[in-house]
Amino acid sequence: MQQYRPLPSFGGLPFTNPEKAKVLIISYPLEVTTTYKKGTKEGPQAILSASYNLELYDEELDDIPAEIGIYTYPDLLLSLGNVEKVLEEIEELTFNIIDYDHFPIFIGGEHTITKGILRAYNKKYKHFSVLHLDAHSDLRNEYEGTKNNHACALREASETLDIVQVGIRSMSEEEKKYVKERDNIKVYFDYKFQERFNTTLIEDILKSLKDEVYITLDFDVFNPAEMPAVGTPEPGGLSWYQVLSLLREVFKNKKVIGIDLVEFSPIPGLIYPDYMAARLIYKIIGYYKKYSLEKRL
Amino acid sequence: MQQYRPLPSFGGLPFTNPEKAKVLIISYPLEVTTTYKKGTKEGPQAILSASYNLELYDEELDDIPAEIGIYTYPDLLLSLGNVEKVLEEIEELTFNIIDYDHFPIFIGGEHTITKGILRAYNKKYKHFSVLHLDAHSDLRNEYEGTKNNHACALREASETLDIVQVGIRSMSEEEKKYVKERDNIKVYFDYKFQERFNTTLIEDILKSLKDEVYITLDFDVFNPAEMPAVGTPEPGGLSWYQVLSLLREVFKNKKVIGIDLVEFSPIPGLIYPDYMAARLIYKIIGYYKKYSLEKRL
Amino acid sequence: MQQYRPLPSFGGLPFTNPEKAKVLIISYPLEVTTTYKKGTKEGPQAILSASYNLELYDEELDDIPAEIGIYTYPDLLLSLGNVEKVLEEIEELTFNIIDYDHFPIFIGGEHTITKGILRAYNKKYKHFSVLHLDAHSDLRNEYEGTKNNHACALREASETLDIVQVGIRSMSEEEKKYVKERDNIKVYFDYKFQERFNTTLIEDILKSLKDEVYITLDFDVFNPAEMPAVGTPEPGGLSWYQVLSLLREVFKNKKVIGIDLVEFSPIPGLIYPDYMAARLIYKIIGYYKKYSLEKRL
Amino acid sequence: MQQYRPLPSFGGLPFTNPEKAKVLIISYPLEVTTTYKKGTKEGPQAILSASYNLELYDEELDDIPAEIGIYTYPDLLLSLGNVEKVLEEIEELTFNIIDYDHFPIFIGGEHTITKGILRAYNKKYKHFSVLHLDAHSDLRNEYEGTKNNHACALREASETLDIVQVGIRSMSEEEKKYVKERDNIKVYFDYKFQERFNTTLIEDILKSLKDEVYITLDFDVFNPAEMPAVGTPEPGGLSWYQVLSLLREVFKNKKVIGIDLVEFSPIPGLIYPDYMAARLIYKIIGYYKKYSLEKRL
Amino acid sequence: MQQYRPLPSFGGLPFTNPEKAKVLIISYPLEVTTTYKKGTKEGPQAILSASYNLELYDEELDDIPAEIGIYTYPDLLLSLGNVEKVLEEIEELTFNIIDYDHFPIFIGGEHTITKGILRAYNKKYKHFSVLHLDAHSDLRNEYEGTKNNHACALREASETLDIVQVGIRSMSEEEKKYVKERDNIKVYFDYKFQERFNTTLIEDILKSLKDEVYITLDFDVFNPAEMPAVGTPEPGGLSWYQVLSLLREVFKNKKVIGIDLVEFSPIPGLIYPDYMAARLIYKIIGYYKKYSLEKRL
Amino acid sequence: MQQYRPLPSFGGLPFTNPEKAKVLIISYPLEVTTTYKKGTKEGPQAILSASYNLELYDEELDDIPAEIGIYTYPDLLLSLGNVEKVLEEIEELTFNIIDYDHFPIFIGGEHTITKGILRAYNKKYKHFSVLHLDAHSDLRNEYEGTKNNHACALREASETLDIVQVGIRSMSEEEKKYVKERDNIKVYFDYKFQERFNTTLIEDILKSLKDEVYITLDFDVFNPAEMPAVGTPEPGGLSWYQVLSLLREVFKNKKVIGIDLVEFSPIPGLIYPDYMAARLIYKIIGYYKKYSLEKRL
Ligand SMILES: [Mn+2]
Ligand SMILES: [Mn+2]
Ligand SMILES: [Mn+2]
Ligand SMILES: [Mn+2]
Ligand SMILES: [Mn+2]
Ligand SMILES: [Mn+2]
Ligand SMILES: [Mn+2]
Ligand SMILES: [Mn+2]
Ligand SMILES: [Mn+2]
Ligand SMILES: [Mn+2]
Ligand SMILES: [Mn+2]
Ligand SMILES: [Mn+2]
Repeated sequence: MQQYRPLPSFGGLPFTNPEKAKVLIISYPLEVTTTYKKGTKEGPQAILSASYNLELYDEELDDIPAEIGIYTYPDLLLSLGNVEKVLEEIEELTFNIIDYDHFPIFIGGEHTITKGILRAYNKKYKHFSVLHLDAHSDLRNEYEGTKNNHACALREASETLDIVQVGIRSMSEEEKKYVKERDNIKVYFDYKFQERFNTTLIEDILKSLKDEVYITLDFDVFNPAEMPAVGTPEPGGLSWYQVLSLLREVFKNKKVIGIDLVEFSPIPGLIYPDYMAARLIYKIIGYYKKYSLEKRL
Repeated sequence: MQQYRPLPSFGGLPFTNPEKAKVLIISYPLEVTTTYKKGTKEGPQAILSASYNLELYDEELDDIPAEIGIYTYPDLLLSLGNVEKVLEEIEELTFNIIDYDHFPIFIGGEHTITKGILRAYNKKYKHFSVLHLDAHSDLRNEYEGTKNNHACALREASETLDIVQVGIRSMSEEEKKYVKERDNIKVYFDYKFQERFNTTLIEDILKSLKDEVYITLDFDVFNPAEMPAVGTPEPGGLSWYQVLSLLREVFKNKKVIGIDLVEFSPIPGLIYPDYMAARLIYKIIGYYKKYSLEKRL
Repeated sequence: MQQYRPLPSFGGLPFTNPEKAKVLIISYPLEVTTTYKKGTKEGPQAILSASYNLELYDEELDDIPAEIGIYTYPDLLLSLGNVEKVLEEIEELTFNIIDYDHFPIFIGGEHTITKGILRAYNKKYKHFSVLHLDAHSDLRNEYEGTKNNHACALREASETLDIVQVGIRSMSEEEKKYVKERDNIKVYFDYKFQERFNTTLIEDILKSLKDEVYITLDFDVFNPAEMPAVGTPEPGGLSWYQVLSLLREVFKNKKVIGIDLVEFSPIPGLIYPDYMAARLIYKIIGYYKKYSLEKRL
Repeated sequence: MQQYRPLPSFGGLPFTNPEKAKVLIISYPLEVTTTYKKGTKEGPQAILSASYNLELYDEELDDIPAEIGIYTYPDLLLSLGNVEKVLEEIEELTFNIIDYDHFPIFIGGEHTITKGILRAYNKKYKHFSVLHLDAHSDLRNEYEGTKNNHACALREASETLDIVQVGIRSMSEEEKKYVKERDNIKVYFDYKFQERFNTTLIEDILKSLKDEVYITLDFDVFNPAEMPAVGTPEPGGLSWYQVLSLLREVFKNKKVIGIDLVEFSPIPGLIYPDYMAARLIYKIIGYYKKYSLEKRL
Repeated sequence: MQQYRPLPSFGGLPFTNPEKAKVLIISYPLEVTTTYKKGTKEGPQAILSASYNLELYDEELDDIPAEIGIYTYPDLLLSLGNVEKVLEEIEELTFNIIDYDHFPIFIGGEHTITKGILRAYNKKYKHFSVLHLDAHSDLRNEYEGTKNNHACALREASETLDIVQVGIRSMSEEEKKYVKERDNIKVYFDYKFQERFNTTLIEDILKSLKDEVYITLDFDVFNPAEMPAVGTPEPGGLSWYQVLSLLREVFKNKKVIGIDLVEFSPIPGLIYPDYMAARLIYKIIGYYKKYSLEKRL
Repeated sequence: MQQYRPLPSFGGLPFTNPEKAKVLIISYPLEVTTTYKKGTKEGPQAILSASYNLELYDEELDDIPAEIGIYTYPDLLLSLGNVEKVLEEIEELTFNIIDYDHFPIFIGGEHTITKGILRAYNKKYKHFSVLHLDAHSDLRNEYEGTKNNHACALREASETLDIVQVGIRSMSEEEKKYVKERDNIKVYFDYKFQERFNTTLIEDILKSLKDEVYITLDFDVFNPAEMPAVGTPEPGGLSWYQVLSLLREVFKNKKVIGIDLVEFSPIPGLIYPDYMAARLIYKIIGYYKKYSLEKRL
């Protein structure tokens, strides 16, 4: 008899027909190579459980984003013990899910899943940028004996796609050199971000991006005080309202073709990070519904 | 839009047709009057989540108990803020669920739910005993200004039903007097239980019980070292194998018409109590399938 | 023999004659209907215990606020298991305590206690505003089958009293409509607050308030990073210095007739929220002594 | 203004006149030299807080031990930062408190407090044995540069008093030699205790003791599963019922002149150890009332 | 510049020349495929840190086991992100380390490391049994898409080596069938172990083993109350003294050629499991020094 | 046999010859007098363990600070149970370590260690200021019966040395008076700091300091949300980037002759504070290498 990992429906909403939903929530709870603190495997379940406590009305948008139709995928029975295989499965699943009529939200799991996701996007879409919100560059070629490590999550993609990184405050020398050599990677360091966080900076970021944008958000892009539930926390980082401001403008000005949110690693006894992650996803759904939906049509 | 509390399917089993299931799992996550440590409201979700990690084969029984068919009810949308109303809802829901063709397992929530459950049983069944495993007598008439308190959980039932209590090691003077005055309540104190735990004692208990038995198990009947995830832990108490021995014999010798397991209050960061609670439920399903099923036919 | 909940004296000060004290600290540790995370019942004890570690001298005010005389009430033996009854008890106790010669500080417990407190204030005082610091509007008519829910804490009061809400960042559609229909409720949303936090905004708030002000402060008005010990944390929110600035100006410019601080739910192993709650109360006592005391005379 | 450490009244009982009480509870929250895990300074407060949840009736004794009269001392304002001075203060305080008409229960704090306590007993009483329940011998001459270390707690006393040690399962070579050289120290090792725990062993222990007995109980004498809240836990150790059996017989057969319970170090989020410590103290009061009281008269 | 994982010296002993040591401690902190709770990667560091608090004298053996000479290997820089590669590295490292003149103690990491270790033993030694202490059979052929899973740890070895399993209380149907088909695997189920734990059972186990024995001990063989710090805790299980009795007899009667201790996953805030794991290793060193050393010579 | 406290090498760097290192890391894990929450004794080990996860390249400085040569001292076997003695040991050790050719970083342990350190600096250097970053003044003459308390850490030094305090937000009346009487102590209160944090304020601070500066940093100078792992957290306080800005300018403009970082008290289950402490030390090494090194030559 098959057993399925418990993955509650987002927002505590009744499981509906996926065909009527515009927003798809897909969990990839992969955890093989996390280096500092373990637990990101439990990320999707923790975030989805917390989302039950969301207020469905959004006071900023004066709207009920959930009315767009949200479908949460059940456990996809990935081969979680075998990275090579699981990346292939993620690529194939992602390829079959994505299209211009739906907005997919992928929940990790470690950042390595983005490697599989971007392989699928790369096959299906042309001419898009990757907006990479993270404390770390994740551009290593290899780490701890493998290319399939969260520290290498964006490396493969960076060889063919334009990457715009925001919030970076930890990087290896190798990555620094690699970035310098290439002109398709733009890095907004966090210590500069904090000096001049304003409309100008966000405008700069928007200019760096193509019209179509895939977003990969590592929860460690936030300040660890606001978001401690990550495996490799770095002091500094963006605040809740800074991330919202940036995302709001991207949804207003670009066509967002998908997003993943990774590296969430719940801390027993601390509920605010779980709820914040759920609220962030709901904010994203709200921005998509309000600002992006018509662009698809 | 209605939001449903996340209650994963027991054992991670796919949600099946309730009509094909012999075993029904119903969550009553009521928590209003807990006095020491709060959290039993989160009991059902914690236990059901942990049950995903169960091995479906049981090496003691050489059997796969899940094959009996298990149906986990989703959130029943109880009026959790209003004890009076919720007890009525529990009574009605229970009354509609129970019959001789199914084995219902109720997960609390605080012990107060048993009051509502037993009202329903009292209406539908005649001539059954209540086997009450608990560290506390729960026979107070009123507590903290209400009769609907976990400390009064068995009082109402004790006025019409035979009660056999096992594991008791905390009791008020009022309860002691009440028990003395009545002859339908039999108490097996824990300190005596530990002195002579053997077949004789279990035989005594079996003799005290009628042929049909409803079981109410407060997780604090266990020794707190083995089961710390309760709101009012008491030193002493039964071990895992002692509880299994007792339950095994009851299922072998009696017709068990239902069971509730209450007062589980998860401790963040400690997984063994959650898993033990899930395993206990699965053991009960196993004993029911192996020893009791034919008695119903 | 009666048993009393341990409620240490504020600041570790010796229990003095209540008649010599100007400041009264009253604990209402009610917890019946909290929806997300339980524990606010333990709020008063945690805050009072932490207050032992306060430095009695305040370097901002160059004063020893404790010299005003602080009396901490012992356990009031409320009927904590019965919301209806406990709200009546709170109303009566509050009515007997409050007068213009003392400054009462009520510590929750869940926000529901404010319903009972404001019934008493409404009977004794005329022409005052309620300043409501909270992440949530708490204006629902009913929730989980009852009107006596923390999500409805301000609803009854809003039918007769002027309410000014600050820090709101979660609200239902029903509440939004209710606020729109009425002109005695003024809402300062948090996302606007953060955009222009300065003297102008505080001046606006002061203008919205009558001369006499009752303050109800839900600890979730703070950013969860600074104050994680709440049952329903919302990202965003005010900082320590923002709350102090606002309170300081209110005490300078208005006659504050009482305050409650609610929904504090201690997190085991994390001491800074407990201490911050204690320090906030002591800051309030300092502002009262320095800025408000003469207004009463 | 003097600030007092919050030390709630035992059992949540109202603070009564110490002259009417037979049982005295004195807190010595000293913590200077703990070597592994810190926290025993918070022991008395944690135990006294938990004691509020005790049921005052004892079902084993069929009695209400609290009726004997229990007085809990408030904070004694010890010079906690200065071991030399604090030991003198403890000696003097203890000397003034103890007499044959009261039963004093001292709560630590680290085991070092026993050094000061026994100096006082040694001055006032003649011809008594010390029953020492501990995982460790605590007979070192010096440790980490001082004789005032918890690892030396019994050394000074062992030079003039008879010591009977039970539960020992960690000892240095130096201590082993010291014990061998002296004939006033009797050691019951834990691994032997577990092999033959029965009436015979307890009878042996009773024979080793004089008629008057002072008991010093280090909470690490228990198995760490049942009592994890200690600074230096050792696998193995006594169970709840084993300790009760031993204490019951000592109270039945000897004149117990005082007891201390030390090294309790609360674990955030785990309530069962705090409650067990409180229950143990209440059991001791019960045994004293039932078995020892008349011996004093 | 190379960075080394912090792996303190066992017992806090100064790092000595490995050539003078008889006992070797090797850390293999692999964690890739743990299914329930993550953290075993941090096992070696936690155990080695706790070992600083050990008393070097052993009161049961009246000996100082450390005098045998213990060498703790520093970080071996394994390719922890790549299971295939790391198993090869473990095999090679193990092969180079083991010989009859030293006693190697391997600390995991997940149970998967035993697969690599036994490949090396299989090459170097003939005619030995594997004594497998575990709650789980770990005999699956494949799990979560890979054969290199902790649930398959003993499968490969079971194809060529004799296995004696003790403490088993969770097993899949596939494993049950596999065991039945083969006659080189002997299983002592836990529920039988608890029924007749005595010399006879241990004698039976000894008879099942060849003269040379390799021991693999999964910490989940213990009762979770005594040893909660494991990834897949199972109720029931062996006590501290039961494991010691079994190991003592094996060291007395057999030639133990190596041991691994795996699946330790520290629980933040709970120190007794870490210390117990360290103490267990030190007990093993003590038994080796006292009972086995001469057999090698 | 001597046992050494596990103190991993900073950054996971291999232990090198101390003579080749320019930066020295010395652990003084003293904890005797902490008043609120215990645990600072475990500070050095926690910080050094976390430092293994540092990225050795610094993206702000575009440099690898570790190349300067860092030597981490092993356990210095201090007489941790005897404050008087340990302060003498610290003074002597410090005196022997410090010179103009090395940059010493002392890790506490409670703030009391600074008393011993500054005695040594006072003997060896003339004409330097002490920059004291802290939430508390630490200028009491005596506390809890001793002058050797963390609350008195700077008092002795303040009698002969110039002190500049930044971040202060808790102070006794006695300290306020003491500061007023003397003209060698300059206090920058936190509430003012937050009002005008900018170049001007930092310039003011720089002007208050002599050319040679010793820095003592109590981790509670940070906002508790960013740095909760302290024994006496105070709301308010500096952010990560505020502390970096201040330190950067001090290193650019002054000759820093040493620094201590004290009062770090790890919180089980929360890794970001440990990592932040490690990162802060590495930032300091980076600033020293980039801005200060040449000044020494
Ligand atoms: Mn990252
Ligand atoms: Mn990343
Ligand atoms: Mn109970
Ligand atoms: Mn009960
Ligand atoms: Mn709120
Ligand atoms: Mn509220
Ligand atoms: Mn001990
Ligand atoms: Mn001791
Ligand atoms: Mn296992
Ligand atoms: Mn295993
Ligand atoms: Mn400080
Ligand atoms: Mn300080």
